[in-house]
Amino acid sequence: MPKVTIAQNILAVNENIAQEIHQSLTERSIRTINIMSSPGAGKTTLLERTIERLHKQLGIGVIEGDVETSNDAERIEAAGAETVQINTRGACHLEAHMISDALAQLDLTRINLLIIENIGNLVCPAAWDLGEDVRVVVASTTEGDDKPAKYPQMFAISQIMIVNKIDLLPYVDYDLQKVRRQALAINPHLRIFEVSCRTGEGLDEWCDWLTTFAHGV
Amino acid sequence: MPKVTIAQNILAVNENIAQEIHQSLTERSIRTINIMSSPGAGKTTLLERTIERLHKQLGIGVIEGDVETSNDAERIEAAGAETVQINTRGACHLEAHMISDALAQLDLTRINLLIIENIGNLVCPAAWDLGEDVRVVVASTTEGDDKPAKYPQMFAISQIMIVNKIDLLPYVDYDLQKVRRQALAINPHLRIFEVSCRTGEGLDEWCDWLTTFAHGV
Repeated sequence: MPKVTIAQNILAVNENIAQEIHQSLTERSIRTINIMSSPGAGKTTLLERTIERLHKQLGIGVIEGDVETSNDAERIEAAGAETVQINTRGACHLEAHMISDALAQLDLTRINLLIIENIGNLVCPAAWDLGEDVRVVVASTTEGDDKPAKYPQMFAISQIMIVNKIDLLPYVDYDLQKVRRQALAINPHLRIFEVSCRTGEGLDEWCDWLTTFAHGV
Repeated sequence: MPKVTIAQNILAVNENIAQEIHQSLTERSIRTINIMSSPGAGKTTLLERTIERLHKQLGIGVIEGDVETSNDAERIEAAGAETVQINTRGACHLEAHMISDALAQLDLTRINLLIIENIGNLVCPAAWDLGEDVRVVVASTTEGDDKPAKYPQMFAISQIMIVNKIDLLPYVDYDLQKVRRQALAINPHLRIFEVSCRTGEGLDEWCDWLTTFAHGV
């Protein structure tokens, strides 16, 4: 089965690079999260609100992945974090070698917390280790309450689920309890935050957790 | 560059199968659409509302693609269309050979209109021809108004864009004119429908177009 062998080799090479990244960042006491979601769940807005709140107390670096455009990197930089843009030009996920290249462009001596914003895609990014400490999946109340069941791998490999856009709950058919149950059935250790990046609800809890995490406790 | 060669071979094999599918369906006077979007933009609900309206006047068959679960196929079947479920078990897009297998399980003598619901993913499905006549991308007012610019390939290869969830426009920051401009800059021939599957707004225009299309005019 040559197709499988090739895929496994590519993933094994990725895994080696990811381990090198993880070791190098850990030696520098930099903690790293990889944020994933479907397109438009609100990753970039979550980062803007998070960085605005934390950039005075933490050195934050961001690696911003997009298929095309650098709009998101400009938004993140305006919020107060040093940012490197990766454009994958059609590729559907970030890979560890892209993170290596991006890290060479960041001043790591000024960073405690590295945030990687992955490509908007609930499938492929789940298979690619980037050397992060923690994986975060952002779900949105507007994308339906069946997503953990339909995209289980993403929820299985994440440590944190953030449910965003809870300000829109009155206007959509979304059963928050059902999503919690589904997600925890796939991954009983998942830590869940419920936020609205529009109203600010829930962001204190998330930012408190992230600050503690960045200090490496 | 062996990696590129392999990818091209796989796509060339897919293209051959897709052409066979297209020829076979055309000979049977079956018209086919391939519906794509990010997860949760509302493909399945759009199909439910469409099939409820059209199943008495058209023979509709549906091939339902999901990474996991058969919830969507059950919803579609209840709406009145003969349905085959494909579970890709981790794969991020449908390929033509999966459509061939699924077609063998449909009674094609009873079908005028074949609808393929692709995996929820704005990147990978754009590269895989399934033998369809028309590609439809569903955008949603809740996923942000930058999606055509950020995922241009999907909008470039589609003939139709449906903007769904227009009932939520008062509650989100979404500039419909900006999306139209972005999408048409990428693809000036794109036909655009604006709908709410929740309130029914705009569905008459879409269903009228689909009926005319299914009759092969």
